[in-house]
Amino acid sequence: MIYLDNAATTKVFDSAITAAERAMSDGFFNPNATYKHAVSVKTEIDKCRQTIASAIGATGDELIFTSCATEANNWVFEHGRKSPKGNVVISAGEHPSVYEPAMRLASRGIDVRIAPITRDGKVDENAFSKLVDENTSLVSVIHVSNETGTVNPIKKLSYIVRKKAPRALFHSDGVQALLKTHERLDSLGVDLYSASAHKLGAPKGIGLLYIRRGITIAPFMLGGGQERNMRSGTQNTPYIAAFASAVQQFSAFEKNNNISDIRDELCAYFSDYGCKIVGGDNSGYILCVHFPNVKAEILQNLAADNGVIIGKGAACSGSKRGNRVLAAMGLSEKEIECCVRISLFPNITRDDVMEAAGIIISAADSIRSNNVG
Amino acid sequence: MIYLDNAATTKVFDSAITAAERAMSDGFFNPNATYKHAVSVKTEIDKCRQTIASAIGATGDELIFTSCATEANNWVFEHGRKSPKGNVVISAGEHPSVYEPAMRLASRGIDVRIAPITRDGKVDENAFSKLVDENTSLVSVIHVSNETGTVNPIKKLSYIVRKKAPRALFHSDGVQALLKTHERLDSLGVDLYSASAHKLGAPKGIGLLYIRRGITIAPFMLGGGQERNMRSGTQNTPYIAAFASAVQQFSAFEKNNNISDIRDELCAYFSDYGCKIVGGDNSGYILCVHFPNVKAEILQNLAADNGVIIGKGAACSGSKRGNRVLAAMGLSEKEIECCVRISLFPNITRDDVMEAAGIIISAADSIRSNNVG
Repeated sequence: MIYLDNAATTKVFDSAITAAERAMSDGFFNPNATYKHAVSVKTEIDKCRQTIASAIGATGDELIFTSCATEANNWVFEHGRKSPKGNVVISAGEHPSVYEPAMRLASRGIDVRIAPITRDGKVDENAFSKLVDENTSLVSVIHVSNETGTVNPIKKLSYIVRKKAPRALFHSDGVQALLKTHERLDSLGVDLYSASAHKLGAPKGIGLLYIRRGITIAPFMLGGGQERNMRSGTQNTPYIAAFASAVQQFSAFEKNNNISDIRDELCAYFSDYGCKIVGGDNSGYILCVHFPNVKAEILQNLAADNGVIIGKGAACSGSKRGNRVLAAMGLSEKEIECCVRISLFPNITRDDVMEAAGIIISAADSIRSNNVG
Repeated sequence: MIYLDNAATTKVFDSAITAAERAMSDGFFNPNATYKHAVSVKTEIDKCRQTIASAIGATGDELIFTSCATEANNWVFEHGRKSPKGNVVISAGEHPSVYEPAMRLASRGIDVRIAPITRDGKVDENAFSKLVDENTSLVSVIHVSNETGTVNPIKKLSYIVRKKAPRALFHSDGVQALLKTHERLDSLGVDLYSASAHKLGAPKGIGLLYIRRGITIAPFMLGGGQERNMRSGTQNTPYIAAFASAVQQFSAFEKNNNISDIRDELCAYFSDYGCKIVGGDNSGYILCVHFPNVKAEILQNLAADNGVIIGKGAACSGSKRGNRVLAAMGLSEKEIECCVRISLFPNITRDDVMEAAGIIISAADSIRSNNVG
């Protein structure tokens, strides 16, 4: 079985499992207690935090562990606005965990402005610039699209925000970007940044919110005062250990592989077959591929029967119909139905990917000939 | 080393580690994707949900997995009020993850009423009854105190709430109660109930909110629509598996042990030595013991040096000073400084506990003679 699905490529690294397992067996003390066993767990957590911070271009005190990026994004929309009444600007390309909290603000009477995205999947910079103004309290733009892998020019957008809305906080959902673009957090110009560890080989159930030094936002969860009073709830030590381990493992794999080359070969192969690659400026880790006249659902099932797992739409949208982001890029409903999502991971080999591509194309062929016949 | 600390007794069961490890190795697919491997993960999650529901007296559709009880408690205070302006009643014995969110509501202008607790650690029923009225939108009373192990008469209190405030939701924080009192959820009369798995032998990082069938509250986290749109964020399958496994293991241990007998022997032993047991109606799993003229911090450290881990105050209160709950029971600051917290777990043996008690008392003796000398 070859996994080229965004969900399935998040297989947990063996080293991350080992790290989690060790923390469950030995590091089960409450890191907030005061005796030495407990203190050593706290020390371990802070060591992991430091490992992650160094890898992504932050300092340890800027990272707050959360249960997932969805939590981090919800936190930002509840408490990451500089003024309670100012307008909020997001892009049309946001993940539901940004889009839905923004819609909740809108339902409470907040002026939520949605910057369009262009056919290539990126924020329309001119339109974006016009929406941001001196009353803007929060701006949120996804760093890498979970639908198309398109990289938004966060640094450039942050410059626009600084200039036009000096009182706004600038947030980016970096779930698909962390360690997958070569931009360091401290170079992006963001105030807030969300990430999820399970996109890097850690288990599902741990993420973080980066809060740039000097920025203050109210906690989302109150209680025991963990995470320097910023996120109450006993820390998930095993997954924090797995997160740090996965970051190191991911970086090591990434250094020894050239995902962009594999991506380029894959794009050429699909294009030769008559597919369209949806969206530009690709991160290398997610591809949205349009197979003319082949329904994605059927292609996904047939490919799975033949040993290749691919995605369609956003798996994490669960039962939701349609695809808001692809529609915002101007794709028709019919086009969207024929789009599959292929995800790469740094420990994948070129040969596996190209073998899978062959299987996908055979499956598409067979669907087409059935359609015709 | 003998662990009699609330934090340390939450050592993760081997069977729970195995369950988590298996889910990390094999069950890493996104449970919200549609191909068969993913569907089998979703099936597994719902099987676990059913296991937990049966054990605690709920139905599967009443349980929403969260990252911890702190999340569940915060959720209730943000979205579990029947009317946005009605008053809120809590007890003075609440955990910080209820107390702090309640204080946040108060800071927003909500009338938050705090029912006093008596010297025995229970809610003062008369005072409570007077505070609840037809404008009450939410009532929250801790089921078992995390400080003293005292059991509140939730069923009786829920009756008062139904009668006096038919439009209120009644919530109970059941972190220290789930499977530790023999009351089933469906007999308690609660609308909402929070629990944490790591008090039952699962890892830290998973909890649940029980939402009684027929009750509707808005989600805390919005996004991909997981957990039937009630809690977005990709599910933490490994910890859900560990939660279900721990519930079964805990129940099995509990059936073969008599924690109340051990508790009674322990209480008698400490009382003979001149200690006071703080709080009445004890659940059997937590004891708050006052050692006259022996500072808890010193006793904790000396006991640890001699192989026994005990608690003081609430470990999860982190760096916070004092003890709000013990103070509300009428203990002086000086008395509070001399209180330790001893926690039992169903896989502990009577002999280990009594050996530990001997070590604690020797340590107290030695501290006293040093004080005198």
